Amino acid sequence: MADRNPEQIINQCTRFVPEHYPVSPHEMFAQLAEMTPPDLAADRYGGGQLIEDFEAEVATLLGKPAALFMPSGTMAQQIALRIHADRSGNCNVAFHPTCHLEIHEHHAYRELHQLSGILVGNPDDLMTVDDLKNINSPIGTLLIELPQREIGGILPSWDDLTAIVDYARTQGTSLHLDGARSWESQPFYGRSYAEICNLFDSVYVSFYKILGGISGAMLLGDESLISEAKVWQRRHGGNLYKMYPFVLSAKMGLDKHLPRMTTYRDKAVNIANVISEIDGIEIKPNPPHTNMMHLFFRRDSNRLWEAVLDIAEETQTLLMFRPRPAPIPAYCKTELAIGEAALDLQTEDIAGLFADLMRRSS
Amino acid sequence: MADRNPEQIINQCTRFVPEHYPVSPHEMFAQLAEMTPPDLAADRYGGGQLIEDFEAEVATLLGKPAALFMPSGTMAQQIALRIHADRSGNCNVAFHPTCHLEIHEHHAYRELHQLSGILVGNPDDLMTVDDLKNINSPIGTLLIELPQREIGGILPSWDDLTAIVDYARTQGTSLHLDGARSWESQPFYGRSYAEICNLFDSVYVSFYKILGGISGAMLLGDESLISEAKVWQRRHGGNLYKMYPFVLSAKMGLDKHLPRMTTYRDKAVNIANVISEIDGIEIKPNPPHTNMMHLFFRRDSNRLWEAVLDIAEETQTLLMFRPRPAPIPAYCKTELAIGEAALDLQTEDIAGLFADLMRRSS
Repeated sequence: MADRNPEQIINQCTRFVPEHYPVSPHEMFAQLAEMTPPDLAADRYGGGQLIEDFEAEVATLLGKPAALFMPSGTMAQQIALRIHADRSGNCNVAFHPTCHLEIHEHHAYRELHQLSGILVGNPDDLMTVDDLKNINSPIGTLLIELPQREIGGILPSWDDLTAIVDYARTQGTSLHLDGARSWESQPFYGRSYAEICNLFDSVYVSFYKILGGISGAMLLGDESLISEAKVWQRRHGGNLYKMYPFVLSAKMGLDKHLPRMTTYRDKAVNIANVISEIDGIEIKPNPPHTNMMHLFFRRDSNRLWEAVLDIAEETQTLLMFRPRPAPIPAYCKTELAIGEAALDLQTEDIAGLFADLMRRSS
Repeated sequence: MADRNPEQIINQCTRFVPEHYPVSPHEMFAQLAEMTPPDLAADRYGGGQLIEDFEAEVATLLGKPAALFMPSGTMAQQIALRIHADRSGNCNVAFHPTCHLEIHEHHAYRELHQLSGILVGNPDDLMTVDDLKNINSPIGTLLIELPQREIGGILPSWDDLTAIVDYARTQGTSLHLDGARSWESQPFYGRSYAEICNLFDSVYVSFYKILGGISGAMLLGDESLISEAKVWQRRHGGNLYKMYPFVLSAKMGLDKHLPRMTTYRDKAVNIANVISEIDGIEIKPNPPHTNMMHLFFRRDSNRLWEAVLDIAEETQTLLMFRPRPAPIPAYCKTELAIGEAALDLQTEDIAGLFADLMRRSS
């Protein structure tokens, strides 16, 4: 059993609780060939109608004057923060302790852009306006992630969010939205994307998570911010010769998945509702605010994973991705994001499989 | 005539003197779908067999211990220079005045990496060992571009090249190869890629120029350099979620075009030989060292371009890309790189069309 290959087992699954159905490179190329008109011209170093039209489309959707397609959010966000810092002359950038820039980017904001990071709030909870008021350094730019992925995809209420934004504005602080998963936030707020983005001076959104694109991101803001971002994009090495596979798969994903955000969120709420009844499973947040949640299991992570693989082998159903130890001893955790795949499963069947999982791993 | 759309005219061409036949996104996706086995798994943040096997393949070809696929050469080269500078503690990087880092990257080497650029040699000629000896600052890293694109794709003789390398070694200077077009250099030296790359501590090669890939580059060097480059790649925002369209198109290009480098170079030499006989055309270098050359025309650039478009409309043959004014008054210039497309044209027919071009634009 120790010798079995998890990747192979997952590849043989036909039913998935997390995310979308996997799309192989072959399938993606076939879909892209199908959707791409023969006379469509490629982009070229960020120029051309394909990429410019898509930038304009997303800018309109998010209510921002200008947009720039980027290879990655890591690049987009550093660039936004650098431009805000250069404008204000203040290199202090504030964010939550679990911010992607703090934990996943080898402190590039400091190493490449000489920005100073200020961590605001409790690592396990949302930042509050009081947390912000307790920072004694002047903050040039405040980054807010909606939803906060590392703490289960939690969102502040609209009132709490606008309180933070309003306070930051009184301090002359620029605001940047880390919107890696902001497409998923809209059902929670029940407001338009433009209204949400209007709180921020700059916005980053991603195309390869819930939207299922190959890779790619976008930075949005005013015209002068985007003009300057083009210079930094080139400096970062992100002004690629051609990005049309990213752009076209992003476009395909936006058309397909964006209208389903409420459906995915509702399915996540239903799943959380039934599996939270199972002894030994804790869910954060419950109910989920978006399509995502963190699942905590009172189980050893390896033992749980073996049971996940057993069920995957027997039923061709993947319940979750590999769990890892949780901060609370005796628990392990995994992130669960609901996409198209779970829509094809009955919620009670999912609950049955999770109950079976807990029995097998106890 | 002023209203015609050059892009549209070029799109209607079926014969091309420069480069390869254009490949539309639709065609590229169809080719990639065709070549990609259904069970091939995508890469994921730089990992996975697809990308790792390709890195190993190119590392073997170039005789380097390790390799890292990158979205762009701009990223790859800055990272290499930064690592060399950190190792030596010397931030001075020396390169030719027409180096890509100096003229096309908004001085990212300085703005992102705090490196000091030292320009070596005459902008219109190759750097010599004497130029290097005349630099009075200690040089941490020397970047050499083979061939030098901005001066017509000229290559130093093997003796001149090794003289520079040997001198740099005596000074404790690290050596980096800007190999944006180094695939094209091999026929000139008649040595293996590994022997050429062995002169350098780090090597960058590109996949989207002569190899016809969508985008993408590779950085090669020793294991520790590549390990560190992975950290900087992430910092730059270049550790993309998936790059398989770049990787697979690079692989396809390498298989298809690499065996033809001598053929492309020989065709370039033949074309240069006949069109250099035409009054008003100068060629640098003649004979070409690689598949590329610069063409200088004793003509107004706009008038010449109109004649290029006239011929394109009448014969569906594109002779060159848009020329621009040259440093010598009364001349304009264009870069001509020979690829697969010119192989389908008789050299004397090309010469006839260029003679016609000169008559029409005189």
